[in-house]
Amino acid sequence: MSTIGPDTTVERSEREIHPYEALAHQLRVDSVRMGAEAGSGHPTSSMSAAELMAVLMERFLHYDFADPGGPGNDRLIFSKGHASPLLYAMAKAAGAIADDEMLTFRRKGSRLEGHPTPRFPSAQVATGSLGQGLGIGVGMALAAKRLDRVESNVYVLLGDSEMAEGSVWEAIDKAGFYDLDNLVAVVDMNRLGQRGPTELEWDGDAYVRRAEAFGWSAVHIDGHDVDAVEAAYGAALESDRPSMIVGRTVKGKGVSFLEDTSKWHGKAPTGDRAEQALDELGRDGQVRVRVAPPRDVRPAVSKATRPTGEPEFPSYPSDGEVATRDAFGDALAALGAVYPDLVVLDGELGDSTRTLAFADAHPDRFFQMYIAEQQMVAAAMGMNALGYRPFAATFAAFMTRAYDFVRMAAVSRANLRLAGSHAGVAIGEDGPSQMGLEDLAMMRAVHGSTVLYPCDPYQTVRLTEAMMDLEGVAYLRTTRGDTPVIYGAGDAFEVGGSRTLRSSADDAATVVAAGVTVHEALAAARTLAGEGVGVRVIDAYSVKPFDAGTLRSAFHDTGGRLVVAEDHRPEGGLGEAALAALAADGIDRLRIRHLAVRHMPGSATSDEQLEAAGIGRRAIAAAVRELAA
Amino acid sequence: MSTIGPDTTVERSEREIHPYEALAHQLRVDSVRMGAEAGSGHPTSSMSAAELMAVLMERFLHYDFADPGGPGNDRLIFSKGHASPLLYAMAKAAGAIADDEMLTFRRKGSRLEGHPTPRFPSAQVATGSLGQGLGIGVGMALAAKRLDRVESNVYVLLGDSEMAEGSVWEAIDKAGFYDLDNLVAVVDMNRLGQRGPTELEWDGDAYVRRAEAFGWSAVHIDGHDVDAVEAAYGAALESDRPSMIVGRTVKGKGVSFLEDTSKWHGKAPTGDRAEQALDELGRDGQVRVRVAPPRDVRPAVSKATRPTGEPEFPSYPSDGEVATRDAFGDALAALGAVYPDLVVLDGELGDSTRTLAFADAHPDRFFQMYIAEQQMVAAAMGMNALGYRPFAATFAAFMTRAYDFVRMAAVSRANLRLAGSHAGVAIGEDGPSQMGLEDLAMMRAVHGSTVLYPCDPYQTVRLTEAMMDLEGVAYLRTTRGDTPVIYGAGDAFEVGGSRTLRSSADDAATVVAAGVTVHEALAAARTLAGEGVGVRVIDAYSVKPFDAGTLRSAFHDTGGRLVVAEDHRPEGGLGEAALAALAADGIDRLRIRHLAVRHMPGSATSDEQLEAAGIGRRAIAAAVRELAA
Repeated sequence: MSTIGPDTTVERSEREIHPYEALAHQLRVDSVRMGAEAGSGHPTSSMSAAELMAVLMERFLHYDFADPGGPGNDRLIFSKGHASPLLYAMAKAAGAIADDEMLTFRRKGSRLEGHPTPRFPSAQVATGSLGQGLGIGVGMALAAKRLDRVESNVYVLLGDSEMAEGSVWEAIDKAGFYDLDNLVAVVDMNRLGQRGPTELEWDGDAYVRRAEAFGWSAVHIDGHDVDAVEAAYGAALESDRPSMIVGRTVKGKGVSFLEDTSKWHGKAPTGDRAEQALDELGRDGQVRVRVAPPRDVRPAVSKATRPTGEPEFPSYPSDGEVATRDAFGDALAALGAVYPDLVVLDGELGDSTRTLAFADAHPDRFFQMYIAEQQMVAAAMGMNALGYRPFAATFAAFMTRAYDFVRMAAVSRANLRLAGSHAGVAIGEDGPSQMGLEDLAMMRAVHGSTVLYPCDPYQTVRLTEAMMDLEGVAYLRTTRGDTPVIYGAGDAFEVGGSRTLRSSADDAATVVAAGVTVHEALAAARTLAGEGVGVRVIDAYSVKPFDAGTLRSAFHDTGGRLVVAEDHRPEGGLGEAALAALAADGIDRLRIRHLAVRHMPGSATSDEQLEAAGIGRRAIAAAVRELAA
Repeated sequence: MSTIGPDTTVERSEREIHPYEALAHQLRVDSVRMGAEAGSGHPTSSMSAAELMAVLMERFLHYDFADPGGPGNDRLIFSKGHASPLLYAMAKAAGAIADDEMLTFRRKGSRLEGHPTPRFPSAQVATGSLGQGLGIGVGMALAAKRLDRVESNVYVLLGDSEMAEGSVWEAIDKAGFYDLDNLVAVVDMNRLGQRGPTELEWDGDAYVRRAEAFGWSAVHIDGHDVDAVEAAYGAALESDRPSMIVGRTVKGKGVSFLEDTSKWHGKAPTGDRAEQALDELGRDGQVRVRVAPPRDVRPAVSKATRPTGEPEFPSYPSDGEVATRDAFGDALAALGAVYPDLVVLDGELGDSTRTLAFADAHPDRFFQMYIAEQQMVAAAMGMNALGYRPFAATFAAFMTRAYDFVRMAAVSRANLRLAGSHAGVAIGEDGPSQMGLEDLAMMRAVHGSTVLYPCDPYQTVRLTEAMMDLEGVAYLRTTRGDTPVIYGAGDAFEVGGSRTLRSSADDAATVVAAGVTVHEALAAARTLAGEGVGVRVIDAYSVKPFDAGTLRSAFHDTGGRLVVAEDHRPEGGLGEAALAALAADGIDRLRIRHLAVRHMPGSATSDEQLEAAGIGRRAIAAAVRELAA
């Protein structure tokens, strides 16, 4: 067994090849071995980047492959997540996993999944949806440079096909704008996508021109020439710009029948073919590399597990009207004072979402991503990976732009806080392009998510505070317009809870509402009271997890007569959450009126919108009367 | 009243200003008037682009503002949709709407919404979610050039803030790659976004360098100098490249207190302030422009309302197994032969989604968008606006990347056909990054959508065929692996229907399934039959609209005992659709077991995945036994 590392002198007679090449070779061999064992995988996509990664890990990378979370680590992201065999082979070469485990690739129960997730120690984020890695890297680079303020380089391996994804250019733009000289994008330009050639094929100069136009340093090299690769990394680390290394490579490099063809994309040679491949490559011994350890650094920000004190939230006038988006802004600013690791990201809407309140109070921890929602969520993921508590906000409608990133955040087991403002038709005249009408469905469907929808400022503040300690993806939905203050400073709101706002011994029906419809429901209840009709009104601010117990009781008390009113499409939102909650325990009688936005709104005032959508006070009262009749 | 148009000679003594400037001025005046009347809107964002649009409409544009759908029209997209007042003012100047109607801006019931939708005749697509217009323009330019093969220029007005959106760069990349010399991007570089300065402010040369790096011609001019604007358009139309005109402009140009500030973004001066603005601008008379009419052209493709014949679908072996994704590919190819206006778009996954079958049969109508899902859906919208029937496909998981575009397609009243393959955990070893687990929720929540999920090849073919005539957004979910053929060539499947596959007089429970779980349900039913237990099995292939009637009957017959099994998250999918369908008519007894994917899958074989998710045959049988006990 040979051990080759930065400090090892290798007798030339023992090895006639360059040290890096021995490792690159081993990475290829192991990629083929993994694919052969699993019967599937992307070995050819892994083989093209072998030198690009071998030089990095032997010479430049400071990384604990077994535990890369600490602040002294560089960062390594495989944006081309399907090249997972390469990452796993690197981890083996680094001694972080054994060969036995490496060969469990893609097997049920294995940490070595088809595309990397953080179940595998060397991967801090899950990748596999192309075009996401560089944006995450931007977040990590920003955190290292501006927050931790430590020396830490972020290396992102990209495929050339994924350079067509706009999210990559959002990242390239942000990195240029923020002078992220600690970010290195390594493009494995093997010319071939899944189906055939990429747009630019081997036109490395075109990629270079594009990156340079966005303010990067960029070079185009032979990606299999280890001296050129080494020089490129060296130059990248010297540069005061973010750097792109475009390596001209060959897909399937090293095995004749695999080279430079799309035919073997996503297919692994097995049996005789695998033997043939390994014969061509030559099997050699087991190469181990001593990777430079994480640097000894002290980050400037402490990642507190507990807040440093009690946050100082404002008071709201008990007879007043305050928009929940305003309270959200207040909450962020107050929480920022006691959570030194709370960071906030904006997409050019901070004055509307009210994250600007945090920006004013804690400018060093506020990050403007401009109109680039994918990048905003990606950066939040990167910062979370470095131990920060990110909160990213945009209009609920525009959170849909980042849905693939939110989905992948759950695969990454990231703790991500998101806020979507301007919910529903209630926004008024701006019209449907600006209305969040699908966001409850979108966010409920994300694995392990929490979905919260407050109706008053005190509730908003408490729920925002609760989000500081939630795991997974947590989403807060806020309203544009001023709505009545109905709670007080002493009120507590648990995730998974609800509030029963009106209750009598003789309620005709249960009305479930959240956000803006809570106030409509209360108005309807007052009207109905005047008619001698009682209603149970539940503020179901925790859309997920849903307070099934309270609903079931109320439902039982009101003879199974239920009205749900939501400023959201009928599918996947509050109504379906309520039904699912009731159904889980069995239903013996249900009569429901589900008021939701079933039309395509135009422009109109907020009140006109609620009426036109049939989700306002008159519709709620009418629904109750219908059920009670 | 002055009438100034391309053929009008204006006496210099009558007007001392350049003809274009009279129109530009009028567009500013009307933007302010609209905002003042509505009390809201984005006049300052409209005022900066007045010359850019005045010169276009007076000198270059061939467009029927009252009816721009025909093939001889140029295309005009306001990617900066919030500048809607400018579009409406242009329509008035063109004589397409009256001043009275123009002043109904943002009022309830008005066609002149806060952001343009196709309810307004001059807008072919809805905009307002920034960064979408250029991608749509790419689709229109491709259709005009490659399909219609007519002379037609596509003009897209963008703001500078939205240049941060990756989708804009997907479009810029595609236009460069496809040599769309009929596409002109006009960037209103007014330096200020909503919240403050953009990243590049007035660095027009930076935008130019970026566009040029992607293969465009680009110029940077004074956006208020009508001679420079005219020359820029002229050069753009001469160029054999797509062209970008970056106009250095001033937000709120023309009114001193509105100029060059973000303070008035999205705010309209009213009352005295409006009077002050109009005084400064000067009110003049009413300028009317005779816009050049659509060209007299004959498109190469006829947009048939009916197919030209019977499609020739293949047969499938009745005892065989065929993947629904394969049948989808077969269907597209066959339909392409009888629908000359069917076009197919791919995101570098055509061999996996099987759109490649269409590409082989009808290469002229197949459009490779590479790995850029937002652009793929945007191009589909553009082609739809030109009368084509687009079908765009990617992995169901990656359709989430384009969710904001799908959402806006509904606002655009577009007829869009989408297919998401590789649904669910059933894909196997590739793991969760590649699994569509949220797509049913996402697509159900889109206004007016149709959501279909076939389980066998014959059903897939029939449903794909049915999608040819659907309005709105229609989504088909397909499966990666081979599944049993259970239907025949003569079977018909209606949108909104279902199929009861097993039924007896004494069924213990109803099992609702779709796609892969239909086969699991049938296997469970066979096992249970061996135990003397009958089950009603419903193939609920039409997830939306859902066949409530059949479900309610079965539900009634089986004492309210219901099992739903779906290869999807529990939220927003088949189970909640079934519950909602039952609830709508009232429920008197329900006991349900909802089998869905509640964990985060790893890598495993397809069968292992179904078992681990608890949605396979054993789980279904166990659930039935539990309910029947």
